[in-house]
Amino acid sequence: MKCTRCRAKAEVQLRAHNAGFCRPCYLFYFRRQVERAIAGERMFTPGERLLVAVSGGKDSLALWDVLADLGYDTTGLYLGLGIGAYSEQSHTKVAQFAQRRGLALRVVAFEEEAAGLAVPAVAAATRRPPCSACGTMKRHHFDAAAIDGGFDVLVTGHNLDDEAARLMGNVLRWQKDHLARQRPVLLPTHPRFVRKVKPLYLVSEYETAVYAFMRGIDYIVDECPNAAGAAQLLYKDVLNRLEVASPGTKLAFVKEFLRTGQPAFAQTEREAPRDCEGCGMPSYGPLCAYCRLVREVQSKASAGASALA
Amino acid sequence: MKCTRCRAKAEVQLRAHNAGFCRPCYLFYFRRQVERAIAGERMFTPGERLLVAVSGGKDSLALWDVLADLGYDTTGLYLGLGIGAYSEQSHTKVAQFAQRRGLALRVVAFEEEAAGLAVPAVAAATRRPPCSACGTMKRHHFDAAAIDGGFDVLVTGHNLDDEAARLMGNVLRWQKDHLARQRPVLLPTHPRFVRKVKPLYLVSEYETAVYAFMRGIDYIVDECPNAAGAAQLLYKDVLNRLEVASPGTKLAFVKEFLRTGQPAFAQTEREAPRDCEGCGMPSYGPLCAYCRLVREVQSKASAGASALA
Repeated sequence: MKCTRCRAKAEVQLRAHNAGFCRPCYLFYFRRQVERAIAGERMFTPGERLLVAVSGGKDSLALWDVLADLGYDTTGLYLGLGIGAYSEQSHTKVAQFAQRRGLALRVVAFEEEAAGLAVPAVAAATRRPPCSACGTMKRHHFDAAAIDGGFDVLVTGHNLDDEAARLMGNVLRWQKDHLARQRPVLLPTHPRFVRKVKPLYLVSEYETAVYAFMRGIDYIVDECPNAAGAAQLLYKDVLNRLEVASPGTKLAFVKEFLRTGQPAFAQTEREAPRDCEGCGMPSYGPLCAYCRLVREVQSKASAGASALA
Repeated sequence: MKCTRCRAKAEVQLRAHNAGFCRPCYLFYFRRQVERAIAGERMFTPGERLLVAVSGGKDSLALWDVLADLGYDTTGLYLGLGIGAYSEQSHTKVAQFAQRRGLALRVVAFEEEAAGLAVPAVAAATRRPPCSACGTMKRHHFDAAAIDGGFDVLVTGHNLDDEAARLMGNVLRWQKDHLARQRPVLLPTHPRFVRKVKPLYLVSEYETAVYAFMRGIDYIVDECPNAAGAAQLLYKDVLNRLEVASPGTKLAFVKEFLRTGQPAFAQTEREAPRDCEGCGMPSYGPLCAYCRLVREVQSKASAGASALA
């Protein structure tokens, strides 16, 4: 196969796009896909300060790499979830990437916020699935770090496979409120929210992996140990089967949803949040989900302490 | 496991319903599922004349069996598609079922309507996928037989797996007009349409297979030879994987769609059809899809004849 752009020998084939690229043209193509998403969805402008959520995986590091190359004002945000060796390795990958590229990085370690707040400890204390507890905590710290650091935009590395899997889950249960909010750009609904954007939402997992490989980005390959068996992985697997049978399925599923499907659900968006009485961040009840979680952990801890006393 | 209804030893386990049944209670359960769908969706009343589309497969014969037992006024309609041994065997199964049960059966053989109208011949002449040509022809003959025979309702054996697979296909491409019309009851939009209903829409393929087995119904087990590789089978397979991981997925997907998802698309229904200039049946253009197909076959045939002359 020849490169769709320059007719040299192609190194990557993208069946969903009916295209192939040599290495230089692939890097050009990938960056242009990101630029197009940013411009097409009016995600942000060069003057704005971007906080890029980085996990140490290929998607977020590839995204940070592109954004830095494009000259955007970026700062990385790494959340230390406290999931043993997985967290240690991912922290190392992120720190090395930032150092080599001379990029600013902020780190928030859950277990340093308060005792017992590492994800496994929270999951155990509250008997919640780890992914549920982790999601609540991540959302809080993303939002808090963005507003406290004076950033204009929070940027995440969600790719096409993530978005298609999430859409599949929302559609299988017809969760109207989730369908109404699944967008590549979420505008703030509260003074302490910043704009949230996903510049990789039309770029597949395979495409970011190829980009990261070609750019020599050293990322953590392992999935989070808690993710095994998670519904998202099953949805991704199922979508990959559909994609093999009919290339372009994932792209059409997400793009047509945004163009045709979602407008039907737009009216079901939930009301604007108020201020959490605990932390002041946006909340849909008196206490935000994060503060409720932290208090649950702390009440279990003090109950345990008095039982021991 | 014990029978959910009578505590005897269960012979069937239905994970989606978190239930199990002995043989007598399963037959009771299955009939009641059909009765509930008929009553809940106001499909038809005992005084109405039902035309039941029967293919010789388990679903349509199980449905006919239940409707006859419930005392409804039913006539079977078998369409002879002209697909070799598959059609011969399925015709035999239907004819034997009707004879043993003393039920009225109408038969329309495509190849007897006009030369060259067996499905394989039509597919070859028009270079269409066989399932596409077959679908157009079946819809025409279902509608025509129902109105010409003075029936009130056309009843089809589409089951939960059929509906979930169709919904998956419609959702993957966000086909709004298809989503707007995918219902267990379609009211007529033209004087030559009758009401169309699917009393098995919440009953799984497995459930109808068990019912047919317990009732000793002799049905054709083979899939249509043209169906291999069809997208519907892939969607069914994928949905079965999701069902195994989370029993009840298919039921929730279809039920929640009808309750929550579909109202969002209701406004996109297409305009009422007019009269086809060829056959007088409802049509969305000057000629209906069936008449266009037949004319294409006939023009190819006469072109072939003049080439030979």
